[in-house]
Amino acid sequence: MRIALDAFGGDHGLRPNVAGAVHALAAAPDLSVVLVGDKAQIDPLLAAAGEYPADRLEIHHCTEAVGMNEKPVDGLRKKPDNSISHCWKLMATGQADGLVSAGNTGAVVGAGLFTRKFLKGIRKPGIAAVMPTATGKCVILDVGANVFPKPSHLLQYGVMGSVFAKHMLGVEKPRIGLMNVGEEEGKGHDLVQQTYDLFRNGPLADRFIGNVEGRDVHTGAVDVIVTDGFVGNVVLKYAQGQVKFVLGAVAQEVIAQLTTEKAAAADLMKKLVTKFHYSSTGGAPLLGVDGCCIICHGSSDERAIANALGVAAQEARVKLNEKIVAELGTLPAMSDEE
Amino acid sequence: MRIALDAFGGDHGLRPNVAGAVHALAAAPDLSVVLVGDKAQIDPLLAAAGEYPADRLEIHHCTEAVGMNEKPVDGLRKKPDNSISHCWKLMATGQADGLVSAGNTGAVVGAGLFTRKFLKGIRKPGIAAVMPTATGKCVILDVGANVFPKPSHLLQYGVMGSVFAKHMLGVEKPRIGLMNVGEEEGKGHDLVQQTYDLFRNGPLADRFIGNVEGRDVHTGAVDVIVTDGFVGNVVLKYAQGQVKFVLGAVAQEVIAQLTTEKAAAADLMKKLVTKFHYSSTGGAPLLGVDGCCIICHGSSDERAIANALGVAAQEARVKLNEKIVAELGTLPAMSDEE
Repeated sequence: MRIALDAFGGDHGLRPNVAGAVHALAAAPDLSVVLVGDKAQIDPLLAAAGEYPADRLEIHHCTEAVGMNEKPVDGLRKKPDNSISHCWKLMATGQADGLVSAGNTGAVVGAGLFTRKFLKGIRKPGIAAVMPTATGKCVILDVGANVFPKPSHLLQYGVMGSVFAKHMLGVEKPRIGLMNVGEEEGKGHDLVQQTYDLFRNGPLADRFIGNVEGRDVHTGAVDVIVTDGFVGNVVLKYAQGQVKFVLGAVAQEVIAQLTTEKAAAADLMKKLVTKFHYSSTGGAPLLGVDGCCIICHGSSDERAIANALGVAAQEARVKLNEKIVAELGTLPAMSDEE
Repeated sequence: MRIALDAFGGDHGLRPNVAGAVHALAAAPDLSVVLVGDKAQIDPLLAAAGEYPADRLEIHHCTEAVGMNEKPVDGLRKKPDNSISHCWKLMATGQADGLVSAGNTGAVVGAGLFTRKFLKGIRKPGIAAVMPTATGKCVILDVGANVFPKPSHLLQYGVMGSVFAKHMLGVEKPRIGLMNVGEEEGKGHDLVQQTYDLFRNGPLADRFIGNVEGRDVHTGAVDVIVTDGFVGNVVLKYAQGQVKFVLGAVAQEVIAQLTTEKAAAADLMKKLVTKFHYSSTGGAPLLGVDGCCIICHGSSDERAIANALGVAAQEARVKLNEKIVAELGTLPAMSDEE
């Protein structure tokens, strides 16, 4: 499969993208990468990146980049030659099977919504984030594409999340939970109450375990957590901030106080920090688009980019979208109001 | 001041409540406690709790308790002699200045809303949670009383939160942030956009620093974070779950791997776990009621109960409510729709 990579994306310029592409190509013989960005800037970085299979890497030249803090709509409109829109066009025209970007998330999602290349039956794509748990991994969606969804969108996120958990995370029978402020039925506002009913009384009932709370994310008690993009985004960013804060406190108040084993403990901490770092997860897929779109953290390093390209390739290998479409076909028809 | 304590509240029965009361009385000579619960059960626990100032501790007898997992409305209705309603009645009739409960949170809030004993001008009380930061503490509200608020409620939470930060946390000029999915103006759904405008163009503009994200909670960049009770509740419970998960991973993957300094490191970790534990924060005040209401975690131990009684006493000492009412008077009049 062939993945378009936004060479301009991220906080650190083109280097981690180019280096990440070279790493990913070495790891996956069935992967091709199209670097989308300024050829004059990419060429010297490629020359410095060492050996790579030239037949599986090409450059799609463009000159503009949406700024990381630019208003997405403004950036996309004022910069018609921007790399994000080029990535989507390559995918929409069949010249790429997927795209990966560490660029402005709002612009990546916005450009995707603009193409309207959604999977058959999908109302709104959603961003899925993979979180570590005590027993493996769970996927939470949406984490930012759709901040004011309808119940039917959340039901579709349940379908997409459970197909993702099964085929990408290896969970045989994914359990779906609805993020809420308490476990009992009837908790929360209208959106979650109506969504609860759709899950409980629909074809997903056998895999729906009911409401879950924030504290359940990491316990391993649930495989797919459905929530609106506002809550999901706040939780995802909170998680990153709190991990940093807590591990920083451990480093200062525990590890730094040791003497003979301080260095050994610091090494072990370093491994743990790497394990919890978002770069290990391979980015967050925007599920529901006809193709594959992986959104990376702005501060992604080459390892994060390589992992994201790996996830994109894996989505194509397992035919994730075909499986989502088949599952969506089992849902009842719903009006636009729902 | 005189605080009514729900002796039935919490997961561990009456013991931590009775013991917590005795501890708190020893620490604060100006505090009186009314233990609200079954006298026959309280008496032997008091006898076992050691010396206490009998002139500052009395029992208000009642026999019923709302279950921790009971539906709040059902529990309050079916059990007219329940301890939570008695606590509120003691406060509403001036027989107590405040109340503390580790009982069913929904029932504590519900019984409070039922009394309608709100501060002058308050539309909806909100629960405030204090979080540790890199430089001190911040307060986030609402964390569960009001899951579908109006913009005017959130503006009032900004007032109450900044008065709390100033007089309870010692922050001279509290900075208020609005929880959102991005920092730029215009981010998020209607509620946060409208709330943003109220802060930006109102009397709180000088202390409003704009939108903040989940990752900002622990950095010390903001003192008061305003959010709806759904988001706040999910984040608060997520925080508890993630701390447990991350510190558990440190214990297993770092501390347990050490040899000579394993015991020393484990001791330091224990201190850190205690520091991050919710029992250190002294419960979450329900701000906006005419009196004082501190909601404790269901699994509160005697230390948590004693800390909560201390916070209740401190709220009375600093005349928190008078200051909130004075600040509220500076807000413009708003229609019920806002």
